[in-house]
Amino acid sequence: MAPDRQSGSESASLAESVLRAGADDGPELGEDRYEALSPVDYRYAEETLRPFLSENAFTRYKAAVEVALVETSAEHGLCPPEVAEEIAEAAKEVRTSEVYRREREITKHDIRALADEIRDRVSDEAKPFVHRMATSYDIVDTANAARFRDAAVEVVLPELVRTHGVVLDLTERYADQRQIGRTHGQHAVPITFGFAMAEYADRLGNAIRELQGRAGELRGKFSGAVGAYNASSLFVEDPQAFERDVLAKLGLESAGHATQIVPPEHQTRFLYSVMEAGAVLANLADDMRHLQRSEIGEVGEPFAEGQAGSSTMTQKRNPINFENTSSMGRELVARFVGAMLDLRSEHQRDLTGSASGRTRGEMLVYLTGMAKRMRRTMGKLQVDEANMERNLEMSRGAIMGEPVYLLLAAAGHPDAYEKSKQLTLQAEDSEEDFFAIVERDPEVQEYFADLTDDQKGILRDPTKYTGLAADKARERVAYWRSAYRVS
Amino acid sequence: MAPDRQSGSESASLAESVLRAGADDGPELGEDRYEALSPVDYRYAEETLRPFLSENAFTRYKAAVEVALVETSAEHGLCPPEVAEEIAEAAKEVRTSEVYRREREITKHDIRALADEIRDRVSDEAKPFVHRMATSYDIVDTANAARFRDAAVEVVLPELVRTHGVVLDLTERYADQRQIGRTHGQHAVPITFGFAMAEYADRLGNAIRELQGRAGELRGKFSGAVGAYNASSLFVEDPQAFERDVLAKLGLESAGHATQIVPPEHQTRFLYSVMEAGAVLANLADDMRHLQRSEIGEVGEPFAEGQAGSSTMTQKRNPINFENTSSMGRELVARFVGAMLDLRSEHQRDLTGSASGRTRGEMLVYLTGMAKRMRRTMGKLQVDEANMERNLEMSRGAIMGEPVYLLLAAAGHPDAYEKSKQLTLQAEDSEEDFFAIVERDPEVQEYFADLTDDQKGILRDPTKYTGLAADKARERVAYWRSAYRVS
Amino acid sequence: MAPDRQSGSESASLAESVLRAGADDGPELGEDRYEALSPVDYRYAEETLRPFLSENAFTRYKAAVEVALVETSAEHGLCPPEVAEEIAEAAKEVRTSEVYRREREITKHDIRALADEIRDRVSDEAKPFVHRMATSYDIVDTANAARFRDAAVEVVLPELVRTHGVVLDLTERYADQRQIGRTHGQHAVPITFGFAMAEYADRLGNAIRELQGRAGELRGKFSGAVGAYNASSLFVEDPQAFERDVLAKLGLESAGHATQIVPPEHQTRFLYSVMEAGAVLANLADDMRHLQRSEIGEVGEPFAEGQAGSSTMTQKRNPINFENTSSMGRELVARFVGAMLDLRSEHQRDLTGSASGRTRGEMLVYLTGMAKRMRRTMGKLQVDEANMERNLEMSRGAIMGEPVYLLLAAAGHPDAYEKSKQLTLQAEDSEEDFFAIVERDPEVQEYFADLTDDQKGILRDPTKYTGLAADKARERVAYWRSAYRVS
Amino acid sequence: MAPDRQSGSESASLAESVLRAGADDGPELGEDRYEALSPVDYRYAEETLRPFLSENAFTRYKAAVEVALVETSAEHGLCPPEVAEEIAEAAKEVRTSEVYRREREITKHDIRALADEIRDRVSDEAKPFVHRMATSYDIVDTANAARFRDAAVEVVLPELVRTHGVVLDLTERYADQRQIGRTHGQHAVPITFGFAMAEYADRLGNAIRELQGRAGELRGKFSGAVGAYNASSLFVEDPQAFERDVLAKLGLESAGHATQIVPPEHQTRFLYSVMEAGAVLANLADDMRHLQRSEIGEVGEPFAEGQAGSSTMTQKRNPINFENTSSMGRELVARFVGAMLDLRSEHQRDLTGSASGRTRGEMLVYLTGMAKRMRRTMGKLQVDEANMERNLEMSRGAIMGEPVYLLLAAAGHPDAYEKSKQLTLQAEDSEEDFFAIVERDPEVQEYFADLTDDQKGILRDPTKYTGLAADKARERVAYWRSAYRVS
Repeated sequence: MAPDRQSGSESASLAESVLRAGADDGPELGEDRYEALSPVDYRYAEETLRPFLSENAFTRYKAAVEVALVETSAEHGLCPPEVAEEIAEAAKEVRTSEVYRREREITKHDIRALADEIRDRVSDEAKPFVHRMATSYDIVDTANAARFRDAAVEVVLPELVRTHGVVLDLTERYADQRQIGRTHGQHAVPITFGFAMAEYADRLGNAIRELQGRAGELRGKFSGAVGAYNASSLFVEDPQAFERDVLAKLGLESAGHATQIVPPEHQTRFLYSVMEAGAVLANLADDMRHLQRSEIGEVGEPFAEGQAGSSTMTQKRNPINFENTSSMGRELVARFVGAMLDLRSEHQRDLTGSASGRTRGEMLVYLTGMAKRMRRTMGKLQVDEANMERNLEMSRGAIMGEPVYLLLAAAGHPDAYEKSKQLTLQAEDSEEDFFAIVERDPEVQEYFADLTDDQKGILRDPTKYTGLAADKARERVAYWRSAYRVS
Repeated sequence: MAPDRQSGSESASLAESVLRAGADDGPELGEDRYEALSPVDYRYAEETLRPFLSENAFTRYKAAVEVALVETSAEHGLCPPEVAEEIAEAAKEVRTSEVYRREREITKHDIRALADEIRDRVSDEAKPFVHRMATSYDIVDTANAARFRDAAVEVVLPELVRTHGVVLDLTERYADQRQIGRTHGQHAVPITFGFAMAEYADRLGNAIRELQGRAGELRGKFSGAVGAYNASSLFVEDPQAFERDVLAKLGLESAGHATQIVPPEHQTRFLYSVMEAGAVLANLADDMRHLQRSEIGEVGEPFAEGQAGSSTMTQKRNPINFENTSSMGRELVARFVGAMLDLRSEHQRDLTGSASGRTRGEMLVYLTGMAKRMRRTMGKLQVDEANMERNLEMSRGAIMGEPVYLLLAAAGHPDAYEKSKQLTLQAEDSEEDFFAIVERDPEVQEYFADLTDDQKGILRDPTKYTGLAADKARERVAYWRSAYRVS
Repeated sequence: MAPDRQSGSESASLAESVLRAGADDGPELGEDRYEALSPVDYRYAEETLRPFLSENAFTRYKAAVEVALVETSAEHGLCPPEVAEEIAEAAKEVRTSEVYRREREITKHDIRALADEIRDRVSDEAKPFVHRMATSYDIVDTANAARFRDAAVEVVLPELVRTHGVVLDLTERYADQRQIGRTHGQHAVPITFGFAMAEYADRLGNAIRELQGRAGELRGKFSGAVGAYNASSLFVEDPQAFERDVLAKLGLESAGHATQIVPPEHQTRFLYSVMEAGAVLANLADDMRHLQRSEIGEVGEPFAEGQAGSSTMTQKRNPINFENTSSMGRELVARFVGAMLDLRSEHQRDLTGSASGRTRGEMLVYLTGMAKRMRRTMGKLQVDEANMERNLEMSRGAIMGEPVYLLLAAAGHPDAYEKSKQLTLQAEDSEEDFFAIVERDPEVQEYFADLTDDQKGILRDPTKYTGLAADKARERVAYWRSAYRVS
Repeated sequence: MAPDRQSGSESASLAESVLRAGADDGPELGEDRYEALSPVDYRYAEETLRPFLSENAFTRYKAAVEVALVETSAEHGLCPPEVAEEIAEAAKEVRTSEVYRREREITKHDIRALADEIRDRVSDEAKPFVHRMATSYDIVDTANAARFRDAAVEVVLPELVRTHGVVLDLTERYADQRQIGRTHGQHAVPITFGFAMAEYADRLGNAIRELQGRAGELRGKFSGAVGAYNASSLFVEDPQAFERDVLAKLGLESAGHATQIVPPEHQTRFLYSVMEAGAVLANLADDMRHLQRSEIGEVGEPFAEGQAGSSTMTQKRNPINFENTSSMGRELVARFVGAMLDLRSEHQRDLTGSASGRTRGEMLVYLTGMAKRMRRTMGKLQVDEANMERNLEMSRGAIMGEPVYLLLAAAGHPDAYEKSKQLTLQAEDSEEDFFAIVERDPEVQEYFADLTDDQKGILRDPTKYTGLAADKARERVAYWRSAYRVS
């Protein structure tokens, strides 16, 4: 039995009339972006990535590879330099909409359509040199390597680096701000907020470094239909040198071996690093949104005048940017599954990774959005030092269970762990301050007779029991500030 | 060290000049759809889904829910009917672009922006009734249930059903066309091509039925900020009855329990069925593309005049539509991972599934594309009966190893499997016809003295050893032609 | 350059000596279960599932299918009843270890090895009837359907139902216990703890129902090597009736169409429901572990005498069971990806889902562990009513922003949302009680002149603003207690 | 309604009696390995990995870390050397079964149980030094890094390298063996079989290198409960130096920053490389199983005497090892999803990645099995050169469409692609040899007047149109034979 949208509306409800209004005679996507079907095209679009990742950009990159080919042909004496120039001019004129029309109406083949669009714009002398010796994926894979690399180098990495800068600033600023350390959501032992941020300073730095490295390892190819240089061998003395020169025009190198396509691992590793960077940002976002919980209140997202936290609960201030980042991190995990599945292609290639592969650029859009959002939000993060102090003290010293155990053990107590545990239970039952219990216990005091002043000080003031937290925060800041440069 | 796109192009290569041409001063998405970042908006867009799945459509559905609320309010005596009509008219005027602008500039909250867009268009008397008693997700989740259900019922299911019809036609037409059965890519025992198609007739039929059922189980809600009807309890005697009436206007029901959001399982099950239908189509596509292998040649995609199989290999005819479908099937698996991750939301909800959730509609776009493409391709499938016969005979009868074993066993041979296996090896070594070997073997002939004529006939003509293949093909066609109806 | 485990230990450190001790001359798995490589065999094993999911159990089920075949053969007059009995006795004697040895040393084929193990134990008269007309996957797929169904019906579902019972008890017991509702981790409006539990009562109930239904839809087959009944057609008048009788012996039915294998969707849907039930339990676990956070403290896992919360922090009490459940829920998502990938198999089948398919039973082990662990933990859940009250009051009434807005709107205030929001901000700035602010505001008081007593009561006591929370909790308990029965 | 396993068996069928036989009084896993629930413990176990990945091995590694701690303590003057030795001896005595019993019965905490097992075996003087200053994950994460690294270096990598060696041998042996190149499953242009193998020589070599690198980047930690060296700071001057010395005993280093746990990326990257190596092997396996298709027959798995290809089809020889490898490759994709999900952990850690994390070692088991199986199978691969030649010639020269197009274009034909395409269609329609058509075409001959002898030779003999295939195969062999060494 079919679901029936009419069931509640025999006599055309007002609600139904709204649905019908304008549904049929609407604009096209090329007239109204909100006709888009994908959120990366309306809600989460990144304009700075369109020059690399839009379909128009893809056309441009593919055209550039076609030109690199003919330009190299000229340099190798295979065609006159004027032909290369003529083709370059024609390549600039090619429009995606026309390529699509030709593909749809005539060739059913995207690259053949592109090549024909160029051919139609050049002289008969130049025509034979368009796309000569190339197979489609010489163009496509090379264009993808170049534009993913460019998108990473020119947009994604700079955005991540700026976000990293904000995290480093927070790490430094709060290097000494005490905070309770939390494991399993439970109060553990004290750290500093800067130390907590240093985790992300380090993980994000490493993720950036990975992404940067992987972007640099993307590879192109110019080795023909099955990768054996069959076509170029007909005309060129050293087809591998010719390939080297074509790719160099786009700042690329070839892989050690290719078939019709570049080995997929280059791109998959790159996308792994995209997912990984996203996971780090999402983890940071998760930490922040938990620290913003009503009961914890240690941080808060900035909240603008006029902003609504809820459409009905007027007091609400939600960690919407942290939640958004967390959500996009999930999506990157899902998308990477697609990338893993595309690691397989039959023989010298099949096309079963082609349609799915066209969505990979969206991963860069999501990651860029995450980086920007986190920078904006973390850059104005409201840190509530008073609440950090309050939370640190709420266990009335029970978080000192560890040093009491350790100092007892160090003083030779044979069952120090159990002794300390009993004291924490005693404190819990009596709702008394843990240190008061400890100080009163005759057995403990016997063992504690020889403590150093430092050790005694820590017992009395849990907030000093932060180990190297502050130093470590500063150390990581110094390390990352000098460690890497993104061009 | 950073990758450097300039490395191969100190003096501005022609290739670089193509990249720079027009990259900066390009059009916007609202002017040129090829500025889109997602392939569902340029290459794989389905125009028929825009009335349900575009952002404009989402606005319309959300506005319709707001109207259903006020319409129900009027029916329950909470507001004058004229107010409901006034708000309905205003709701029709709302434009996504304006909602987005307001969200961006003022509210930072999408539903608050939508409500305010409506409020600005109505009288002061009507204003307080806009969005009253609602929380954002009363609107959002209800709108999503309605539009996903509508997209399924009005577009996706009809497309699948039409594709199913083509598969049923092929099943019937080739019910008797003999074909070698293949397991592990190896010749097994004979079937008919119709029987092979019947697999997909059945699996696709079941997937359609599942999708249809799950679309009908999508649920809306009108129970307020945490699902406990806190707000509506202030004004309405029976808030659950009120909710029932609001949802009925969109042909929906409520779940047994909701928090701020509808329990996620309804949508996840629906999306599972989308992925499943895609997997069936992808598997069919995989089978077809293998049957199209040069060496097998039993089927072929239709090939248009002017079509190019390759940009360089002029003889190529590739199974591009089958490969595309296979590829999209992979992507649906990946996307469903995202849906699984969104099954978790903290307490009465967090928003960590919101951004990721916005991409789910794309799964419907991919599935619709797959269904249409497969229908088009299968509808003109070139079936090469001659090659089917040729392949059936290429093992020179060795595919009769099974009936020889079984008939020997039936005749009482204590080690029939081994005996038959030896005969197949003998045939393989001598490159002789298997049945010649069998007929000559004295031990076998002794056991075969009492075979029925039918059994003897099968041994002589392997093509008769097809069991119930043809009957089964027709049975499944009859079953599905009468089994279900999609409204 | 290779990593080198010796690098820190030139002179054989004590640590290294520990690694070497006993590493080489250790026991075998058949002597010490801690030699196992998979946690489902040491840490997370479920003994009650071994009769269904161990390899010995699989052998038993496959042997039972072989016996069902010969038993049906006898009933159809294809072999003497004594032969069936003889084979049944032999089937009971088969040992997995012997089947494996034969497969390894002779057949390289698991089912051929199983059949030969049976054949070796019966008379020459009976030998030809063993495995006759069957293909391996008639046995394997039927055995899997039967054992997964049995494991679900006899272990997994009863465990889930018992866990559901505990959730229903909590829902009922705390139906009236007020708690702050939380969205985005922020205080929203009040609910009751029973209402919060009712979410899981409903979702878990639905997941159980789904799992139960899907277990009942698992399918077997007896249609031979390619599913066309080629073999059985040689000997049997109505091969589909014969199949029906074989399967009925194991309480199974056939699918509408099969190839060498049962269509994968039956099992995949079943596994989806396993993953889904796990996701619900994991979501519940996540909620609980957050409610156990030090700052929230509304619930706590039971903590045994002698238990250690940390190996060093003596005061720690961690939500380890909730965390474990959450973790296993993640793993089920991952495992289900494997199930989705196995939806594809070429032509009448390939074996590319075989090795991966052997791990699917582990999903049932994980889910059973989750159900038991959650029952144990939730059954002794420590609920801290005092903390629930404390948290409810910590916002000093600001959670009443919604009713103030709504009542203002109802009274005709044209900009009620903004007014209420200003009042919450005023309360926040002044750290005063929200209601005091509200009561003092002259504009508000004007609008509030005509409030009903109920409405006034709610404004004064936020804890009454729980809508239908308590009723709804009880309603869901009543529904589920009468709704389903698991045999 | 519940499924009911009894439904077909009112009077206790023989089949049912088999199920009941021995199901209840069966052995335990510690007595019979076939009681295992996971295939990695019965069917796919790798004995060589048990010293690293079994639970007993894990105990040994954790004990070794405890000893490294006390050994370092002695070196730093924190305890007498005799105490370290005493503890080392005790650590060797610890048995997993006893640790588990203690955890179950007393501590509910695995590492506390381990520490107590050691403590119980040493003098009162030594007791306080056991596990002192450590948190559980100082032990667990360090042990995991060490054992994963060791498993990789001592087992997985050597296995992969040996498999790589077999691939390199095949690449070299068949460097000149002509084969048709295949794209989209269609004949493209010729290559050599060695060139096809060189793809995998390269991809597998790169995957090995990646895995080796990532194994070397696994990291340990000794920085206490929240990573801030709180505990060790109480007793040690330079806690980071102390950590360095502890880790060095296991050949490990620390990460730049840790919380309670090592940053997850180290392990995730390692597991990515495991998945990647598996994907390459699976892709190779897929190619091989397709080349083994009945109609193609270019390669075949070795087939042993006595082996059964099917339990009923006596002639069958299935690519079972290739299918198995392909299947395990799918499973690795699924398992890696779990690893991605474990990239998130709250604050200084939660335990939600713990249970799932315990399964990661299984990925190494699967990969090792794949490597061994592929080595065994590829090492005896049956290559049918005759079929390779036959397939190469089956298109009657149409695979020369590309060079005809290119040479026409080079000779100045303005529409060379279309011309060549028409010739291939002509050849197809007439079923004539393509070159005969080409040679007869007057327009073509005009353009072909000036071809070089090499170019003419290729047109006449398609098998020469292999470009650099043979050279490239040898180049890759030479590269990889000298490129890397695994210790």
